[in-house]
Amino acid sequence: MTPNTYKEIQLANRPEGTPTDSDFNFVEKNIPTIGTDELLLKTLYLSVDPYMRGRMKDQKSYVAPFELNKAITGGVLAEVIESNSDDFKQGDIVTGTLDWAQYNVADAKSVQKVDPSIAPITTRLGILGLTGLTAYFGLLDIGKPQQGETVVVSGAAGAVGSVVGQIAKLKGAHVVGIAGSQDKIDYLINELGFDEAVNYKDDNFKEAFKKTVPNGVDVYFDNVGGEVSDAVIFEINRNARVVLCGAISAYNNPEGDIGPRIQWKFITTSSMMKGFTLGDYAHDFKTGAQDLGKWLQEGKLKYEETIVEGFEKTPEAFLGLFEGSNLGKQLVKVADPEFAKL
Amino acid sequence: MTPNTYKEIQLANRPEGTPTDSDFNFVEKNIPTIGTDELLLKTLYLSVDPYMRGRMKDQKSYVAPFELNKAITGGVLAEVIESNSDDFKQGDIVTGTLDWAQYNVADAKSVQKVDPSIAPITTRLGILGLTGLTAYFGLLDIGKPQQGETVVVSGAAGAVGSVVGQIAKLKGAHVVGIAGSQDKIDYLINELGFDEAVNYKDDNFKEAFKKTVPNGVDVYFDNVGGEVSDAVIFEINRNARVVLCGAISAYNNPEGDIGPRIQWKFITTSSMMKGFTLGDYAHDFKTGAQDLGKWLQEGKLKYEETIVEGFEKTPEAFLGLFEGSNLGKQLVKVADPEFAKL
Repeated sequence: MTPNTYKEIQLANRPEGTPTDSDFNFVEKNIPTIGTDELLLKTLYLSVDPYMRGRMKDQKSYVAPFELNKAITGGVLAEVIESNSDDFKQGDIVTGTLDWAQYNVADAKSVQKVDPSIAPITTRLGILGLTGLTAYFGLLDIGKPQQGETVVVSGAAGAVGSVVGQIAKLKGAHVVGIAGSQDKIDYLINELGFDEAVNYKDDNFKEAFKKTVPNGVDVYFDNVGGEVSDAVIFEINRNARVVLCGAISAYNNPEGDIGPRIQWKFITTSSMMKGFTLGDYAHDFKTGAQDLGKWLQEGKLKYEETIVEGFEKTPEAFLGLFEGSNLGKQLVKVADPEFAKL
Repeated sequence: MTPNTYKEIQLANRPEGTPTDSDFNFVEKNIPTIGTDELLLKTLYLSVDPYMRGRMKDQKSYVAPFELNKAITGGVLAEVIESNSDDFKQGDIVTGTLDWAQYNVADAKSVQKVDPSIAPITTRLGILGLTGLTAYFGLLDIGKPQQGETVVVSGAAGAVGSVVGQIAKLKGAHVVGIAGSQDKIDYLINELGFDEAVNYKDDNFKEAFKKTVPNGVDVYFDNVGGEVSDAVIFEINRNARVVLCGAISAYNNPEGDIGPRIQWKFITTSSMMKGFTLGDYAHDFKTGAQDLGKWLQEGKLKYEETIVEGFEKTPEAFLGLFEGSNLGKQLVKVADPEFAKL
């Protein structure tokens, strides 16, 4: 069943501004033979994530930039096709940071086994994976929401934001989501139980937002940056905590991102803002995954996935993130498993 | 010796942009009689501080705005002329937040006695007063400089900045000061022992600054905001701490203060920025004052005062802060004591 060749997606150019299809190259490769302790993996699902835009720039950051004319790497769910490791057998499902490719050869130590009996395997790329953990640690370790406080989350209908808002509700906060369409607003209120949700594309966004935070803002979990964040930061209370997770509004802005300086607001309120990346919490992943798994099983957390089918649609799915075309976690379904029964 | 009348300085207008002499009114008043537990105080020295500009605006902040056509209040050193309190006697020196006036009537509980034998009394308006405590808590509680780290302080030759840099040296940091004249640069290096100092008014400031922080910036104690801070924040390391104490460059900017959005830099470095006001640390003042007093007595801290003479020069001294005309603490000497021997 395994073909002799497969395709991988390479970064063809460092995009200026919004990436386009031409920044990605599909390159055909031969399926290699695997060495000691290696696995041949067939990709089932790929995760496309906003932070990957940053890795397309040639700049110092918390992870090295992608190399030109090499495969882009990201979160992958795959099936073990061949194994030279005692720890894995054919038909096992694994996850790891792997090439955007139809097949990967990987060291057995570089992937984690996924138990398909716990939850749908795609949750391991979303709410039970790096996405859920990002929400968990950013909100609870930096934001520290208290009962009765007001928590605002931007990009609220996205993969991270939707988990942030739900955890904040579990902690007893008044939760306000900011998103970019009426469908998303309805989803946040009706499905996820947010107290309020505001559409940042509305002309009267600032006034509408202000009405949702009559007691000010204690925690702001920021996925988007830009003018949305300017508006939120203007409403922060004393001792507010601003959690900087992402700035998707700025990722494709090569001219630089200009706005009101915010330091004065933080001085006059004794407030704090902190960036983070998930790697800061690697030592605590187990705790986070346990809590998220428990809440999911208890029905306290819901999630949504937007899945496009076909490896060739990967660039399109990635580019869609910047237009807000996803609800919840954006995934690409690459193939069905050959051996596993899911 | 006490006259029948005295003058106080009232806020005549809420200044737009840089305040001018006409925003201050000198108003003559009769010396009142004092009630139970009250003191009649003769002002010896006034403190003028950048944060007071914020109180001239009619906006919500950490302290209420000054009221129009009422006396401006600030840090004052005064001599007790008459006392209806058992805790104070004629000739005692006291300090407190009092009117900008030649005489004050104050509740005995609202002022603290100053022991002139410990250090010159003016230190209680500077390095041993709110100024020194601001440097102490901002740097040590938020900045947390570690041995070998790089600490940058802007407004470095000012009252707060000069103490920040010296405490950072005591903690074993590589200390870089940013100031606005060659005299100040020389003072920081030759008198206070800063490792490096850079003049932000130089055309090549950014390049010159960058050379002083070859290992990046771990702690930035920010007194000025604006483009100086943009340049420093661009060089922060992983897990950097930005202490927001003041933003003097923006205080007189009614059009708003625009610059590059800085969130991305904090995300990619997992860094933190926090505002504070001294009131946040009221419960710990004693510890701070003890440490500062000890370091001063041991000769580990030096300080400079810029003193103008004459109550009528108070507005001029205040306005000079925004031109950087002060080295160290800016004070106004209002009068000599009548009874105390200093």
